[in-house]
Amino acid sequence: MKNKVFAPEGQTRRDCLIGAAAWAGLAGLGLRPGMASAQATDPLPSWNAGPAKARILAFVAAVTESGGPDYVPPAERIAVFDNDGTLWAEQPMYFQAFFVMDRIKALAPKHPEWKTKQPFASLLKGDLKAVAAGGEKGLLALLAATHTGMTSEEFERSVSEWIATAKHPTTGRPFTSMVYQPMLELLSYLRGNGFKTFIVSGGGIDFMRPWAEKTYGIPPEQVVGSSLGLKYELRDGKPVLIKTAQLVLNDDKEGKPVGIQRHIGRRPIMAFGNSDGDFQMLEWTSAGPGPRLSAIIHHDDGTREYAYDRESKVGRLARGLDAAGARGWTVVSMKSDWTQVFAPAR
Amino acid sequence: MKNKVFAPEGQTRRDCLIGAAAWAGLAGLGLRPGMASAQATDPLPSWNAGPAKARILAFVAAVTESGGPDYVPPAERIAVFDNDGTLWAEQPMYFQAFFVMDRIKALAPKHPEWKTKQPFASLLKGDLKAVAAGGEKGLLALLAATHTGMTSEEFERSVSEWIATAKHPTTGRPFTSMVYQPMLELLSYLRGNGFKTFIVSGGGIDFMRPWAEKTYGIPPEQVVGSSLGLKYELRDGKPVLIKTAQLVLNDDKEGKPVGIQRHIGRRPIMAFGNSDGDFQMLEWTSAGPGPRLSAIIHHDDGTREYAYDRESKVGRLARGLDAAGARGWTVVSMKSDWTQVFAPAR
Repeated sequence: MKNKVFAPEGQTRRDCLIGAAAWAGLAGLGLRPGMASAQATDPLPSWNAGPAKARILAFVAAVTESGGPDYVPPAERIAVFDNDGTLWAEQPMYFQAFFVMDRIKALAPKHPEWKTKQPFASLLKGDLKAVAAGGEKGLLALLAATHTGMTSEEFERSVSEWIATAKHPTTGRPFTSMVYQPMLELLSYLRGNGFKTFIVSGGGIDFMRPWAEKTYGIPPEQVVGSSLGLKYELRDGKPVLIKTAQLVLNDDKEGKPVGIQRHIGRRPIMAFGNSDGDFQMLEWTSAGPGPRLSAIIHHDDGTREYAYDRESKVGRLARGLDAAGARGWTVVSMKSDWTQVFAPAR
Repeated sequence: MKNKVFAPEGQTRRDCLIGAAAWAGLAGLGLRPGMASAQATDPLPSWNAGPAKARILAFVAAVTESGGPDYVPPAERIAVFDNDGTLWAEQPMYFQAFFVMDRIKALAPKHPEWKTKQPFASLLKGDLKAVAAGGEKGLLALLAATHTGMTSEEFERSVSEWIATAKHPTTGRPFTSMVYQPMLELLSYLRGNGFKTFIVSGGGIDFMRPWAEKTYGIPPEQVVGSSLGLKYELRDGKPVLIKTAQLVLNDDKEGKPVGIQRHIGRRPIMAFGNSDGDFQMLEWTSAGPGPRLSAIIHHDDGTREYAYDRESKVGRLARGLDAAGARGWTVVSMKSDWTQVFAPAR
């Protein structure tokens, strides 16, 4: 996947690993993977030739072209990605919700009072409709019971153990196998071209960090997400960080640019999302000077994944679809832009 | 400064740039810079041979020795540094306080009411004692007037303009010239050995980011500091982030491990501080498993810099000095461990 094509003066070593300009040219010609010469390797083999792929390749070529009008120094090549529905699937509900349910079940023997206390009782009986009917207050109680009161390391362990064994309810696959192969290729391609890749997700920051590095190649310090409080204290003389219920960041909608500024401190030049929760992140990214690429992953493939947008309760996408054209945002069709959806089992 | 000495199998390219093991050996022999062979270059030329330098070199050698018992993968080589008093000076008061004073003076023409309103009136008259007598409430009013109500970009601009022109009141040097040459060498040496270097400071995150990359080689996303709120909104159709007075993180004492977990999500293996505000950061770093290096910069050089510790109002150091021996923390004497203090003017 790393093909040293050219090395113009002044470019960093990383700039030269892929030869972005060559690929942009191929994409513009409508060449498909496999049609390229034996000497070149397509950095995005799971992307069909088409406007989305061409736009990505042309953008990367432009910002890495030393001396070119759109050149961006490596330090400023910040790319941000929503997680749920952008890097991995989010149906029939956010995967973190399965973690909450499984944790409640695992913790139930230590909490006999949950047998009669809502929403725990309904959840333990498998009555999710009743849980949902309990509204936000009930969901916050479930979140508090599974995400607070333990040390940061205990929570990390509970996530790591769960993610290693839990299976998606309809596909039966591990959740970390329900990541999108075209997006893994894109992350790798960007990093090969000197980009720093960040997750900026409405999901919990501490829920994503334990597996994001292995799954996406994104280290903990490049994960931004919704954040609860932490309290430093000594337990038996040993320092610990206790997770508290304080909401430090709701990393959704207007919270996404806030999380970006707080954690990254620099405006991204590229942003990928899939729902209206990502609208402000794309808007903030696009409003900066110089070259920008904002894109929406459109879930329009009911055969290989799921088809949903305006009416979906999870990952609703309406405003973004309406605005994309006028704002110059790229809409990626999972159906026609991707040759495959999920990464091979690893 | 980069001397490729050896490249054992399995080490990354970065591991091999310095040849840390060779340097640890030289330091152990008590060799001074200049006494080493012509083929080797001291990565820390402003550090005198002595226990502090030997400890640093031995630590870096140990964690980068592929297959060694203390080997740490590059992704986990996180090093954190306090800023005020650790990377740059902090006397006669935190440099950010000079920024506040200068900003109040610059903004005064637009605020005629400040002529009679405290603590602004005292500050504008140069009566800092009266300002201090106003206590925390007065200082917060000054902070609010200079750090909130503007966009993140307007604030960044005000910092950049100030740092480019402001001078230290007694040395007359630009504040960014009052950084410690031995620490610049240490940051560079660590990065050359695959470490990721972070600032973790009680100072304002948005105050440090505009100049930290140029001054220290530390990009905005690796700066952790005290943080105020941000509010996303549209002004004339253009998205902006407005700085608000909400205290999101007080990155001092117990707040430092909280800031580390929130921003980095991984426990550092190395931490440098200089005051009791850094105590918990050193404690948190040292309490992790495997090799750890925690160190305190001791301001004991009244000739070349300042001499202060237990009784100082700025950068008070008492508990850390008392605890260092028993906890295995390295105490760096600016007087005897450093051949020079300040970086040459640039």
